[in-house]
Amino acid sequence: MNILLTNDDGIYAHGLYSLYEVLKDDHELFVVAPDSERSAVGHAITLADPLRVRSLNRNGSFFGLALSGTPADCVKLAVHELIKKPIDLVISGINQGANLGINVLYSGTVSAATEAAILGIKSAAISLDTYRDPDFCFSAKFAKRLIAWLNKIDLSSGVAVNVNVPALPPDQILGVKVTKQGTSRLVEQFDKRVDPRGDIYYWQTSSETLATNEDDDIDSIALKQGYITITPIHFDLTSYSTLNSLPTLQI
Amino acid sequence: MNILLTNDDGIYAHGLYSLYEVLKDDHELFVVAPDSERSAVGHAITLADPLRVRSLNRNGSFFGLALSGTPADCVKLAVHELIKKPIDLVISGINQGANLGINVLYSGTVSAATEAAILGIKSAAISLDTYRDPDFCFSAKFAKRLIAWLNKIDLSSGVAVNVNVPALPPDQILGVKVTKQGTSRLVEQFDKRVDPRGDIYYWQTSSETLATNEDDDIDSIALKQGYITITPIHFDLTSYSTLNSLPTLQI
Repeated sequence: MNILLTNDDGIYAHGLYSLYEVLKDDHELFVVAPDSERSAVGHAITLADPLRVRSLNRNGSFFGLALSGTPADCVKLAVHELIKKPIDLVISGINQGANLGINVLYSGTVSAATEAAILGIKSAAISLDTYRDPDFCFSAKFAKRLIAWLNKIDLSSGVAVNVNVPALPPDQILGVKVTKQGTSRLVEQFDKRVDPRGDIYYWQTSSETLATNEDDDIDSIALKQGYITITPIHFDLTSYSTLNSLPTLQI
Repeated sequence: MNILLTNDDGIYAHGLYSLYEVLKDDHELFVVAPDSERSAVGHAITLADPLRVRSLNRNGSFFGLALSGTPADCVKLAVHELIKKPIDLVISGINQGANLGINVLYSGTVSAATEAAILGIKSAAISLDTYRDPDFCFSAKFAKRLIAWLNKIDLSSGVAVNVNVPALPPDQILGVKVTKQGTSRLVEQFDKRVDPRGDIYYWQTSSETLATNEDDDIDSIALKQGYITITPIHFDLTSYSTLNSLPTLQI
């Protein structure tokens, strides 16, 4: 297959390279990724600044293209301009840190997969549930199986999969579970500081995920239990349960 | 009510000011908006840079706080740090240009409303369907009615409304319609150029919305027919129709 690899941790990230290494013998790979970290950019695209592309070598040979844009920009520019062959699949990741619950909205990793779905291309976002000393070995091998599975299945147009892998020794992983996006989220905090000139500024940070009373088929719960989670996602934000309950409003 | 006003066109935008003018006598208003245009930033938040806040006067008196961040940052920082009173409602807009279909994903205006919903605050995004010489007079007056309506109704937690107003003379507007988010979108194009140093760069631009065969209850269709559209949106991206059809995957 012709596979586009991207991420939001930037083209130098280990998670991206580990995907590349494990897939390069079986597929034709095209790497187009942000030139630096673009975490938490959500589905941002770049309209007010020009996009620049830089060719990048690793270990002495061509590795991919570094873009001065967001993950969604990478997918758009790759598909429309940079890659001359038809792309069969877009894989975004492997992200350092899980993308679960409401945090999915902020995730550049997931937005790259959603962008591919918008363009009608099968796609997956893959994240590993750790920020410290990540070992991408198992999750990269799992990505190979995931790609074979994606290749076989009939995914509706406009649907992508958001995959999270627990940071456990492989023999402790309980299996793969199809899940719903839950409502867990990081609770933001603001660290107020004064700069050397006496001006106030804030760092946005976050504390632990809110505890939620959710079912076993929710992404964060299943991941914590030791399952790899696969959440099918789409780009329709309509709240269907609300549609018919809204009262009339006159002009 | 205590109402937080924000937008993605920036604190100097006419659409925001027209909202302020029409609401200021009936409500306590708090304006926290980006210090410059932040269109198409989607649900981006700012983690790697500090956030700075600047107080802004208009017509000789305090108007609001300009933030060096995204619309979602504005809502978070306003609620957690900047405003000491409880916020009853967040209104984002009035945006110059409609926010319809898949483009909702890229919209900073809508993401501010979604962010409010995440924080458990009732909210609406309002957009006017024109980019040229917008007259916000009618849409600002309609915002007043919308706010009274929002105050009365029982909106589920986590649901916001995305409102689009046609740029028509008021007597040609057919009414208000509750709609679903459609699949119309702007089709991106990339304008490839060479800078004075001989390096290539791209401008991301877009052409007309894709024609889609959609029903009358879809946002873009109803708006084109002359209705004000109200789409209830939430932050759950799960594709429920796909959930039970995915085949098993072993580790």
